[in-house]
Amino acid sequence: MKQTEILLPTLREAPSEAEALSHKLLLRGGYIRQLAAGIYSFLPLGYRVLRKLEQVIRQEMDAAGFNELLMPAMQPAELWEQSGRYNEYGPELIRLEDRHHRGFVLGPTHEEVIATLVAAEVDSYRKLPLRLYQIQTKFRDERRPRFGLLRGREFLMKDAYSFDVDWEGLDKTYQSMVTAYNRIFERCGLRFRAVEAEAGSIGGEGETLEFMALADIGEDTIVTCPTCHYAANLEKAIFQQPEEAPHANEDIPLMEAVHTPDAKTIEEVSAFLGEAPRVLLKTMIYIADNYPIAVVVRGDHEVNEFKLKNALSAAKLELADLEAVERLSGAPHGFAGPAGLDIPVYLDREAAAVRGGIAGANRKDYHVRHVAAGRDFNPVQIGDFRNAEAGDCCIHCGSELAFNRGIEIGHVFKLGTKYSKPLGAVFTNADGKEEPIIMGCYGIGVSRLMSAVAEQSLSETGIIWPLNISPYQVHIIPVSAADEQQNQLAGELYRKLRNAGIDVLLDDRDERPGVKFKDADLIGAPFRVIVGKAASDRQVEWLDRLGSGEKELIGIEEAFNRIAKICP
Amino acid sequence: MKQTEILLPTLREAPSEAEALSHKLLLRGGYIRQLAAGIYSFLPLGYRVLRKLEQVIRQEMDAAGFNELLMPAMQPAELWEQSGRYNEYGPELIRLEDRHHRGFVLGPTHEEVIATLVAAEVDSYRKLPLRLYQIQTKFRDERRPRFGLLRGREFLMKDAYSFDVDWEGLDKTYQSMVTAYNRIFERCGLRFRAVEAEAGSIGGEGETLEFMALADIGEDTIVTCPTCHYAANLEKAIFQQPEEAPHANEDIPLMEAVHTPDAKTIEEVSAFLGEAPRVLLKTMIYIADNYPIAVVVRGDHEVNEFKLKNALSAAKLELADLEAVERLSGAPHGFAGPAGLDIPVYLDREAAAVRGGIAGANRKDYHVRHVAAGRDFNPVQIGDFRNAEAGDCCIHCGSELAFNRGIEIGHVFKLGTKYSKPLGAVFTNADGKEEPIIMGCYGIGVSRLMSAVAEQSLSETGIIWPLNISPYQVHIIPVSAADEQQNQLAGELYRKLRNAGIDVLLDDRDERPGVKFKDADLIGAPFRVIVGKAASDRQVEWLDRLGSGEKELIGIEEAFNRIAKICP
Repeated sequence: MKQTEILLPTLREAPSEAEALSHKLLLRGGYIRQLAAGIYSFLPLGYRVLRKLEQVIRQEMDAAGFNELLMPAMQPAELWEQSGRYNEYGPELIRLEDRHHRGFVLGPTHEEVIATLVAAEVDSYRKLPLRLYQIQTKFRDERRPRFGLLRGREFLMKDAYSFDVDWEGLDKTYQSMVTAYNRIFERCGLRFRAVEAEAGSIGGEGETLEFMALADIGEDTIVTCPTCHYAANLEKAIFQQPEEAPHANEDIPLMEAVHTPDAKTIEEVSAFLGEAPRVLLKTMIYIADNYPIAVVVRGDHEVNEFKLKNALSAAKLELADLEAVERLSGAPHGFAGPAGLDIPVYLDREAAAVRGGIAGANRKDYHVRHVAAGRDFNPVQIGDFRNAEAGDCCIHCGSELAFNRGIEIGHVFKLGTKYSKPLGAVFTNADGKEEPIIMGCYGIGVSRLMSAVAEQSLSETGIIWPLNISPYQVHIIPVSAADEQQNQLAGELYRKLRNAGIDVLLDDRDERPGVKFKDADLIGAPFRVIVGKAASDRQVEWLDRLGSGEKELIGIEEAFNRIAKICP
Repeated sequence: MKQTEILLPTLREAPSEAEALSHKLLLRGGYIRQLAAGIYSFLPLGYRVLRKLEQVIRQEMDAAGFNELLMPAMQPAELWEQSGRYNEYGPELIRLEDRHHRGFVLGPTHEEVIATLVAAEVDSYRKLPLRLYQIQTKFRDERRPRFGLLRGREFLMKDAYSFDVDWEGLDKTYQSMVTAYNRIFERCGLRFRAVEAEAGSIGGEGETLEFMALADIGEDTIVTCPTCHYAANLEKAIFQQPEEAPHANEDIPLMEAVHTPDAKTIEEVSAFLGEAPRVLLKTMIYIADNYPIAVVVRGDHEVNEFKLKNALSAAKLELADLEAVERLSGAPHGFAGPAGLDIPVYLDREAAAVRGGIAGANRKDYHVRHVAAGRDFNPVQIGDFRNAEAGDCCIHCGSELAFNRGIEIGHVFKLGTKYSKPLGAVFTNADGKEEPIIMGCYGIGVSRLMSAVAEQSLSETGIIWPLNISPYQVHIIPVSAADEQQNQLAGELYRKLRNAGIDVLLDDRDERPGVKFKDADLIGAPFRVIVGKAASDRQVEWLDRLGSGEKELIGIEEAFNRIAKICP
């Protein structure tokens, strides 16, 4: 493509809305433009990257035996009522009515639609397994759209669904998808990790893995073991319980109230009493499916709501509001404690190991010392209710865990019968008995993937795209637009590369060299050929931006041969 | 692809919702499935057809110098308010609110978004012309979705937009698109006509052409001249005025009321009075931009609202309701006439040629004879306000016009400044003066195109797809699933064709021959290879369904060679 023939509006400054560097550079490079918060247009360059990502994904999905189809974005609300997600999904689900006042949603995902489709078409085990996918625009009304394509409200997704007669079948399909995902992300040149995860709003009954691109701007924390390769996201991460000396409650003095005026937070109480946060018992009150409960963790730990929710088998878990806290604890927020609280108390195992800790007194401006579980309160369950944190050790091998930030780029789920049962996707097995189909689902955020690749491909002056994903593999720049010899040689190489099927961009603009080079940095092709004064000797400057980054003077034929050798 | 590895649910009977034969066969062949009225899933076979159509379109759009991009489906309502279409578009525009109660629409088309995008990126004539397109899902809440993909509420469209400095530039781009559209539809194997058309809700200031696939189920009537190739849709079609003897009002008797109890329609009045409809003056009352007007055509003619609307330069034209008719004419519906009506009257030129016609008396149960224009009422304009009809002659060459039904598959518009002005898409010209960009827009209904091709490719037992568009070019069917020799030979040809890059489908199912052949008819590949008893001699039956339709026994190598020669 000639640069004068493509809409490629580079910017000197990024719009103020951009936070992450990749977002700034995608805007400055003329890849994307915001239409509304979290809603973007892909300009020709960005669209080329999307198409290349799609191609990699299609090849691997097809190779794994999945059939591509295309389902609608507009989905009847009844289907979501049938699955139970219409109410569960919350305000992220975009709802609308048609002219006849029938309810629809804009699909953030397609479990309901595909389960309904398969329910109508498949009746016998002989038509299973079935493996389907689509690449399609999805909608999710995020409360806080962020980082450009990373957390958008309209985005491109590859979503795949599998249908098996039993869990063994699903296990195989699931494993084939894990393999395919590894290949896809490797082909995109990403540094990533597959981590154990929670299922979230998709739900399901089996295991689930998240694929995380490593990046500091990632909104998720991933926990990995450098020795045995255990990996999980923070929600899911488990760890060894530090050994603590056993203690007997008989040795602990009786509870004693202390006046702690205005000391509500762990920091304030710790400072006021001169005690370390690790001897404080942090007490949080939650509403789980309309019933109040309390959870107690050490003052230096954070509650893990997913672990708590799982222990409770709750569909919904929310922090109690200030009014509820006051009603339930008899004191304003900041003074709740397990002793004397008349709701079920869940106690973290390390908080249980604190010998006579300090907790809220359920009385304004008071805390109590020497609180002993089993004597002063009876927890309904002692377990792991906290986040992993620096210093924690791998549950498998004992090595110290590492913490990184990640961008979720893919997610695989064993759904089991969560959707097939309510939506009637059943089959008749070989014995003539009706059974629900065992489903799996497998997503990749395609537009988000573009941001993740960009975020890992930053240089100081622009993105340097991996060869497979770059909108153009080679960028040819004649230094002087007025020099006929340079233009001719550049044009010669351009035509030769085009004919060889290489994605090549030629800067044929009448611009100063400085402008051309700055734009080239923003456009980010991995290979650059600069046609300057040596054009008279049929020589050009070669720049491998993924390699040394040093310019090298070579013959024009050698330039062609190098590119033809590298580019697929 | 092996048939056991793809979701391909053929049906013996079409669901009752299907009217058109192509719709029935797309359902029965396992191409599409309805999710809600006018909302369809494309199953793997249907999706393959869509992708092939997309590929043809992309190649021709790229060759015409258009850049592909992708804009969002969710569009801020403000943009539509700026262009004035938010209110104009009516209930077909799907409107919704995000969680912050900001208004959005689901794009039925993207003039507003792209004009806004280009307004932000283009400032100088040096960045023009610009030519952009996308292939994207569109939304339109049709009152009566019909015929499967023909009139859907969610559909795939290619929409292209051009930006030029002047009308001469637009003329060139427009012509290049007309050429590209002809190539696209030819490559899809369609019988079609480009016809002059009205701009409709897209609007614009210049000419516009519709591309119509000829089909009896088409919802549009197209009018063509068999001699000089004039072609227009019914809304736009003009014709010679039949010569009428001039007449003088002096010779016409004075008006005379006749009692016509309960005779309201042309048929009723004609029968009651024993007069031909052609001497009746049909009078219709409309509200044009809030003002009432009347139009008078001959009783045997139909009012053409587009011609009337153009004559009125009205933005909106609607038939007056019964209450308004009664208020304005002083009589119930059915008795309005031009004489004595106190609103502007538009008179069709052929109604004007009726010598003393019969019209409503503006009085219940009465008509009047001998109504003379210029004496009994004064029309504000005499012109062409009726539809063309059988017997009318070409305005250019006088031949009798032909009438056909057509499916609109493409539409090209010269928009001019209709969107660039309100949305601020301006540029600085070579003299430093600011001017609005001259826009064009060019649409193809991709999913509708699939139905149009199907409708023109019907056989008695299924669709026979054109080679370029068929989901599979060749279908190999071993007659007996249990016959090892047949399976081996079929498998050999299958692998050889696959390796040669041919789209081939192998029926590897354990089914009776009758089932396989019926399904093959529904699947509709143009070439079929039947591997039967002659497999022992390495011979197969060859069936060219686009050609003779006769089976021919040939060697397996010959079968391969024929396919390799025909398939691109």
